[in-house]
Amino acid sequence: MIVRDLTEIEALSVDVAGAKGVTKRVLISEVDGAPNFIMRQFSIRPGGNTPYHTHDWEHVIYVLSGAGQVKHSEGVHNLKAGGSALVLPNEEHGFVNTGDKPLVFLCSIPK
Amino acid sequence: MIVRDLTEIEALSVDVAGAKGVTKRVLISEVDGAPNFIMRQFSIRPGGNTPYHTHDWEHVIYVLSGAGQVKHSEGVHNLKAGGSALVLPNEEHGFVNTGDKPLVFLCSIPK
Repeated sequence: MIVRDLTEIEALSVDVAGAKGVTKRVLISEVDGAPNFIMRQFSIRPGGNTPYHTHDWEHVIYVLSGAGQVKHSEGVHNLKAGGSALVLPNEEHGFVNTGDKPLVFLCSIPK
Repeated sequence: MIVRDLTEIEALSVDVAGAKGVTKRVLISEVDGAPNFIMRQFSIRPGGNTPYHTHDWEHVIYVLSGAGQVKHSEGVHNLKAGGSALVLPNEEHGFVNTGDKPLVFLCSIPK
């Protein structure tokens, strides 16, 4: 069993093309022996966004704090604390902070 | 893409043997088309606990609010908001609310 506090986990800048003001913490991963999926926490600063992109794996999302939107091919959904989302494999998506505080969410992916 | 607010999701009483004061919301699941894993939110009232048990799948945990402990075969770990945990397959575990507010956490499992 592994238990850790958020403060133990380094926040890494996400420097991929199209990302603006995004940091990531890997909370639980295959390095810990997780058999099936990986849980990360993302923080997007006000005015920032993740890349608008697609890939062949899903995202399972839970919004911890802040306000924002997830853009997709057919429009946008608003996000706030307590919101959950499923981005299916190959769905275009991008997360945008539309508020004045960090938009913080969990994003789990398959291993 | 599915986006939903917590308030849209019914809280179900967990009435399995050994559970005390536990409710569950299924946030994202195979019903939504999730290919690999299921995200649930549990709330344990003060004085309550989940069963102390084991099974052959893992839990990936994120603590949203409250204070508690996860018991396992070798002792206990304290839990508080921002804490994450990995319970490996076949590890004995049970969650206990040791505080005076609900202990609320996400618990994801493989499909």
